Amino acid sequence: MPEKMFLQTVESEGLAHLSYILGHGGQAAVIDARRDTDVYIEIAGRHQCRITHVFETHRNEDYVAGSRDLQRRTGATIYHGENLDWAFGRPVAEGDAFQLGDIRLGILQTPGHTFESISITLADVGSSDAPVAVFTGDALFVGDVGRTDFYPDRAEEVAGLLYDSLFDKLLPLGDEVLLYPAHGAGSVCGSGMAPRDFSSLGYERRHNPALQVDGREAFIRNKVAEHHYKPPYFKQMEKLNQYGAPPLRELPAPPPLDSAAVARAADDGAVLLDLREPEAFAGAFVPGSLNIPLDLIPAYAGYLLPYDRPILFIASHADDVAAAVRYLVRMGYDRLDGTLRGGLHAWETSGRVLASLGVTSARDLKDRLADPAAAPTVLDVRKINEWEAGHLAGATHIFLGDLPDRLDEVPTDRPIVTFCGSGRRASVAASILHRHGLRDLSNNLGSMAACKAVECPIVHA
Amino acid sequence: MPEKMFLQTVESEGLAHLSYILGHGGQAAVIDARRDTDVYIEIAGRHQCRITHVFETHRNEDYVAGSRDLQRRTGATIYHGENLDWAFGRPVAEGDAFQLGDIRLGILQTPGHTFESISITLADVGSSDAPVAVFTGDALFVGDVGRTDFYPDRAEEVAGLLYDSLFDKLLPLGDEVLLYPAHGAGSVCGSGMAPRDFSSLGYERRHNPALQVDGREAFIRNKVAEHHYKPPYFKQMEKLNQYGAPPLRELPAPPPLDSAAVARAADDGAVLLDLREPEAFAGAFVPGSLNIPLDLIPAYAGYLLPYDRPILFIASHADDVAAAVRYLVRMGYDRLDGTLRGGLHAWETSGRVLASLGVTSARDLKDRLADPAAAPTVLDVRKINEWEAGHLAGATHIFLGDLPDRLDEVPTDRPIVTFCGSGRRASVAASILHRHGLRDLSNNLGSMAACKAVECPIVHA
Amino acid sequence: MPEKMFLQTVESEGLAHLSYILGHGGQAAVIDARRDTDVYIEIAGRHQCRITHVFETHRNEDYVAGSRDLQRRTGATIYHGENLDWAFGRPVAEGDAFQLGDIRLGILQTPGHTFESISITLADVGSSDAPVAVFTGDALFVGDVGRTDFYPDRAEEVAGLLYDSLFDKLLPLGDEVLLYPAHGAGSVCGSGMAPRDFSSLGYERRHNPALQVDGREAFIRNKVAEHHYKPPYFKQMEKLNQYGAPPLRELPAPPPLDSAAVARAADDGAVLLDLREPEAFAGAFVPGSLNIPLDLIPAYAGYLLPYDRPILFIASHADDVAAAVRYLVRMGYDRLDGTLRGGLHAWETSGRVLASLGVTSARDLKDRLADPAAAPTVLDVRKINEWEAGHLAGATHIFLGDLPDRLDEVPTDRPIVTFCGSGRRASVAASILHRHGLRDLSNNLGSMAACKAVECPIVHA
Amino acid sequence: MPEKMFLQTVESEGLAHLSYILGHGGQAAVIDARRDTDVYIEIAGRHQCRITHVFETHRNEDYVAGSRDLQRRTGATIYHGENLDWAFGRPVAEGDAFQLGDIRLGILQTPGHTFESISITLADVGSSDAPVAVFTGDALFVGDVGRTDFYPDRAEEVAGLLYDSLFDKLLPLGDEVLLYPAHGAGSVCGSGMAPRDFSSLGYERRHNPALQVDGREAFIRNKVAEHHYKPPYFKQMEKLNQYGAPPLRELPAPPPLDSAAVARAADDGAVLLDLREPEAFAGAFVPGSLNIPLDLIPAYAGYLLPYDRPILFIASHADDVAAAVRYLVRMGYDRLDGTLRGGLHAWETSGRVLASLGVTSARDLKDRLADPAAAPTVLDVRKINEWEAGHLAGATHIFLGDLPDRLDEVPTDRPIVTFCGSGRRASVAASILHRHGLRDLSNNLGSMAACKAVECPIVHA
Repeated sequence: MPEKMFLQTVESEGLAHLSYILGHGGQAAVIDARRDTDVYIEIAGRHQCRITHVFETHRNEDYVAGSRDLQRRTGATIYHGENLDWAFGRPVAEGDAFQLGDIRLGILQTPGHTFESISITLADVGSSDAPVAVFTGDALFVGDVGRTDFYPDRAEEVAGLLYDSLFDKLLPLGDEVLLYPAHGAGSVCGSGMAPRDFSSLGYERRHNPALQVDGREAFIRNKVAEHHYKPPYFKQMEKLNQYGAPPLRELPAPPPLDSAAVARAADDGAVLLDLREPEAFAGAFVPGSLNIPLDLIPAYAGYLLPYDRPILFIASHADDVAAAVRYLVRMGYDRLDGTLRGGLHAWETSGRVLASLGVTSARDLKDRLADPAAAPTVLDVRKINEWEAGHLAGATHIFLGDLPDRLDEVPTDRPIVTFCGSGRRASVAASILHRHGLRDLSNNLGSMAACKAVECPIVHA
Repeated sequence: MPEKMFLQTVESEGLAHLSYILGHGGQAAVIDARRDTDVYIEIAGRHQCRITHVFETHRNEDYVAGSRDLQRRTGATIYHGENLDWAFGRPVAEGDAFQLGDIRLGILQTPGHTFESISITLADVGSSDAPVAVFTGDALFVGDVGRTDFYPDRAEEVAGLLYDSLFDKLLPLGDEVLLYPAHGAGSVCGSGMAPRDFSSLGYERRHNPALQVDGREAFIRNKVAEHHYKPPYFKQMEKLNQYGAPPLRELPAPPPLDSAAVARAADDGAVLLDLREPEAFAGAFVPGSLNIPLDLIPAYAGYLLPYDRPILFIASHADDVAAAVRYLVRMGYDRLDGTLRGGLHAWETSGRVLASLGVTSARDLKDRLADPAAAPTVLDVRKINEWEAGHLAGATHIFLGDLPDRLDEVPTDRPIVTFCGSGRRASVAASILHRHGLRDLSNNLGSMAACKAVECPIVHA
Repeated sequence: MPEKMFLQTVESEGLAHLSYILGHGGQAAVIDARRDTDVYIEIAGRHQCRITHVFETHRNEDYVAGSRDLQRRTGATIYHGENLDWAFGRPVAEGDAFQLGDIRLGILQTPGHTFESISITLADVGSSDAPVAVFTGDALFVGDVGRTDFYPDRAEEVAGLLYDSLFDKLLPLGDEVLLYPAHGAGSVCGSGMAPRDFSSLGYERRHNPALQVDGREAFIRNKVAEHHYKPPYFKQMEKLNQYGAPPLRELPAPPPLDSAAVARAADDGAVLLDLREPEAFAGAFVPGSLNIPLDLIPAYAGYLLPYDRPILFIASHADDVAAAVRYLVRMGYDRLDGTLRGGLHAWETSGRVLASLGVTSARDLKDRLADPAAAPTVLDVRKINEWEAGHLAGATHIFLGDLPDRLDEVPTDRPIVTFCGSGRRASVAASILHRHGLRDLSNNLGSMAACKAVECPIVHA
Repeated sequence: MPEKMFLQTVESEGLAHLSYILGHGGQAAVIDARRDTDVYIEIAGRHQCRITHVFETHRNEDYVAGSRDLQRRTGATIYHGENLDWAFGRPVAEGDAFQLGDIRLGILQTPGHTFESISITLADVGSSDAPVAVFTGDALFVGDVGRTDFYPDRAEEVAGLLYDSLFDKLLPLGDEVLLYPAHGAGSVCGSGMAPRDFSSLGYERRHNPALQVDGREAFIRNKVAEHHYKPPYFKQMEKLNQYGAPPLRELPAPPPLDSAAVARAADDGAVLLDLREPEAFAGAFVPGSLNIPLDLIPAYAGYLLPYDRPILFIASHADDVAAAVRYLVRMGYDRLDGTLRGGLHAWETSGRVLASLGVTSARDLKDRLADPAAAPTVLDVRKINEWEAGHLAGATHIFLGDLPDRLDEVPTDRPIVTFCGSGRRASVAASILHRHGLRDLSNNLGSMAACKAVECPIVHA
């Protein structure tokens, strides 16, 4: 029996980053490697393959690339698009091809998201030279296309480039070609992705909303009109990925600290990062701590956490700390200095001061809003497109990522109810407000989802 | 090189139950098997041994024995003490011996905890016929001895039997003999165990407080004066273990249910068991749910959960449900009918009604207690020996296990603060009181540990 | 963020059987479940889904279906094609549809491989009602189509039915539709499959050799001319799968036996199944044992192992026994009574009789064949299509699966060299001949692959 | 419930090296850390402890210590005996004590095996200040005592020191003290160890053969008369461990190479290390390769493998390569440059030259030895003490570790049968002789064990 080729998706949860490893005949290639690279070594080993090629579809901006670490560990060569002045690796250009057993990888230059973006076709030459799949990086996603807002001065130009990449290069590969993009639903690199990881060029051609446009001009207009957030840590990632990130020896294991040590560290400037769920945070927390529930770390740590201060964790489970470490290391946070041993329970039994937040259900909120005298300030911290799609009448909008810089805009004459899509980001917001000294606070658990269910009055922008 | 003998402890956390598997020369024996037996099969397989002998040191009362399931799966023979009318297995008596490779196991009848209790010596006949280790069941623990309160009419008799077992049979085996008891610290089968699993007969002879007595009479006096709780589920376990528990096919996987289905099931009589931490429960919970934080399940489910009603889980992590299932199956709970999909978050976003509890820190409580007008009712739910060792002045004591039957003794003229050793059992108590309709409730997070740290006034019984 | 749908392939190695589990919104479906079903329960649990639907694309003939066990464990409903008199489950017909969250599954009747065969389309109704993927069972594979030799009296009819299913139902779904078949390369259910598991209808339409035909008649001609083997165990599988297989409690763990016990069992009629590699078997083996290297079990056990005799394993690694158990249980072999503890080494140190085989390299064989006086009998045990594609001049052909019934056709006047594609099946053949009493035997390690490399003279049928 | 202390043995199989990690109250200590340290980090993490102390009972000679790597990863302090000029760490002396929660560790200087050897007592101060356990390094084992042959000029002095350490320091700690030595049965650091890892000082005092002596002089006489082998790699280990080994980033993953690349590397001087079982090696092997079955690597690689040449692996399972890598890295072999992809099968199908060995069973050998004319040369490669305890009449003895240097002493006038305890080391010897050009070779599978079973004539030295 001929040896099977393998193609495995490695998803980095939270970031919704999709990387790929594929191989045949003893050789393997990795596309868009993340920083913690053990997984690729392990998969390649299972298939008795050596990783010989590492491709970057573009200078990724939302995580630290693991390319150089993979190169160090395996001797692989790194390849990336020629339209950027990389400090390492080798440039590739349209038409370059690479053979791994029966797999042939071919390079397409598909600029738009960035100038150096490439796509990579995969053919199984045992069957045909025609491609069976394509890795599209941030050009084409399942249900969306890449964002083109990184060069505001040249917005129309890059949107046009993306149009050309999509319609003149990718779609013509054929309806039958399988699609393997660099992100899935939940990524900050696109907002309209479908909640599904499998698709083909033909399916996208017919059903991807971003491709159902009437010509190049319309496409450009749509793209230019989009609003995207750019977390401040992107800058850090771009620098690291262009010039080479420091190698990762092993994942850090933040040492357990007792509550006295944690209190001292906080006094000395450490950030206390509470990973617990909003209900637990509302129940009790360490005054001054920042709540980012674990699964929100990839999306919001880059707005809220500094690179130059130590971070200490408060969590219910050791596993949650390990997951947070992985998330933060991928984003280049390396000062992960400790974790409260025994979690908040240890803080409680030490007799130290505790804080709590109120919580509000959608029914409560609806009742209170119905009485103008009792109505609180609803602080909605969702993204602008969510806000515009419907929000509570009278609410105040400040995007969560902007909140630390816009604290003075928060009205303080009434009780504040933090609000978002379901009450999770609202908890982050409440923790920020509490650190800022506000006290008459509650988190609307359920938020927009619950408000719809109980039919709160909703207005549209 | 001669083949190594193996001896591995299998701890069932929570119950602090210690079972053992040991083997040599292709045969293995299991001592005090728990109900979920995959672990024994797996260990025996790793050592290329067949499980041929299963011993029960006594009719265990705190978990469902896995002996019969092991027998079904391996063909092993079950052995237990002759002084009970077992419905299965073979009786053994003083002096019986069993050979597995170079391991010789010998039977000692060591009654006291129960009449049929046995201990099992282990000799490595390749070195000597003298025992190198002994499995003592519930006769002798690290730092304590077995409880002897199961035959109240014959209290002095059984305490005397235990004395004889300890001083005339076990200790004379020699100071050098390693000790392998059936429980470790945290078990309901003894309250004074040391927080350590390794010891020897000589170390216990010298340092075990229960053995530092001035003769048989003094020993009996001490034992008879002890107070132990007997959870109601013990009766169920005794019956199952004497007559044979139903086989366990595989661990149940409670299906995920949406919030509507959970609400319906609760209306139809299901128990909603919330496994989350006290802070999370205080933050928000489903009205009517019972909070037993995961790690308290083994100790308190047997008081608080019925066998005849379905149980539905509310948890933060799927892992927590899996762990709770394991705990409850070991205790014979088989009606584990579902889990709230998405956890409390799903309940919240459905717009359903939520409840919350107040929390109190030790500092708050100290301040409130200092002012007679503001002083709340402190409901202390610890065990009587903890209460007697020191409690807050003016507190009310009702042991948590007794609370459902003594709800009418809870004073309701003032706000109630639930209280225990550190605030965890207090959360269970608060959830019971809330189900009972009380609302002016808060949980004293930190409880006794924190009160000592902040120097609340403490009185002794 | 909307919840992601999941679709995961569960491959049963060796059989190259592909089953699928997919889900959304708390519900999951399994397609063509294998007998050991823990994997589906585990995946569904990880996604917090309940398995509610189990589909069988047809009455599978090459493994025992796990549908009924899944039903017992989860309460799911079993669905299958209406054109068979199943003893359980519910029939479905063209156009039936099932909704699981945003997933819509639709039934297509696609007979040909069998009369009751169905395919199942998958649409993501959040994107479109058009299908994005299709599960084709044994109708369409990557690089091949299903075999149609199961109804020899109606060969042209069923080939025609398959043509209609492919060209009138499946391909018209659209080039963009992803393909999920029931087998991959290496299955006995098709011989031309591509060594790759990912494809689309459009890729197959263009590149699948079996679809590049000039009309219905040509397709039928091709299919009728194909030669397929049908292992005798297929009958057993068909019966079990139509009428319901006995439930699988847990995977058996064959107990370790010493060499004396193994010798006794063999005397009493047990089959000694040696799982080791050909080189190890050639080096030394237990006289009378049958060598089937582990990875050949799925393809050849069904020809060579009886259902009515106990099977004992000889292996180098305990892991290999566990894998063989899994393979054999999937094929309905339940009398797996033991394993030689310590492997062949234990047999050797017991002083028992050993046997050995000679080995021949391709270079040796080429030299010997060049000298007519020295030329051995080359017994080629490959499939007829391999033989016809090229074989050594003067070789004798008997397919391995037929060898036990055709032993008297093996010439014994010269030394025998067993031969296959690479020397693995040749080892099985040598072990069969040795049991049959032949002694002047050797295995041509490397076989056809090596013979090509060293340019032995090759003739074509 | 008070927090439990933990004490876990980490065994490095093959070397039979036992290291320990223990902790309480958030701190942990490691004793005699091996080079691959992930396991300690993982265990400490599971107990929410920080590794703060790393002890070395002596300058280990049989593996590379992981102390410095642990220090780098955790910030722990390294402690070792003061009687050596270490290039790192801090010296400790008699009576020094270290507290970790309720664990108190105390230093005893116990020279003899080496001058700087220490033992470490463990007390649970919550129970008593008296020790409950002791870590004895290479002073006292289960069933044996440390070797004292490392200072041949001062043989009596060091044997006397060991006597004093044992009888004046360790045994007086009390019969009840549990014993945790640095090696178990199978180590090259002692030959008489019992096949069991659990014991106490009292059990050893009574049953350890090495302690049943009539006084100091007799003990010294016994020790001086002992014969031990010292593998050449010990020197390398001593140097690395005294001056600090290079850090280990991650375990190497030798890349898969095809047979052409392996052949080239062998031509360029690489060692081809065949990890397969003796039967498989006998069946077929690459000419020139060295057979060391996986489990013999720790004991014999240090005699047979050079540090200055690349090593390439030939194995049946990828797992075996991973295990060999671990073994060799622990011994400081870092040039692990590749593995033959697809194992020997790939070599065979490439058409390359193969070699084979004959095998002989004990029955065959007995018959051949009974006929002087047919009697082969039996080359017995066991240790001198095994040889002296009984060997085949007329056999030649050369210890396996010495064989490469004594090849010219091997008689070549008759066929050679390699011989050892069970046929495994005999395979290593046969591979060495084959590389040396000898061809009339066979391996006596079963060797001494089988010869006893079939009653070959045995003589004693």
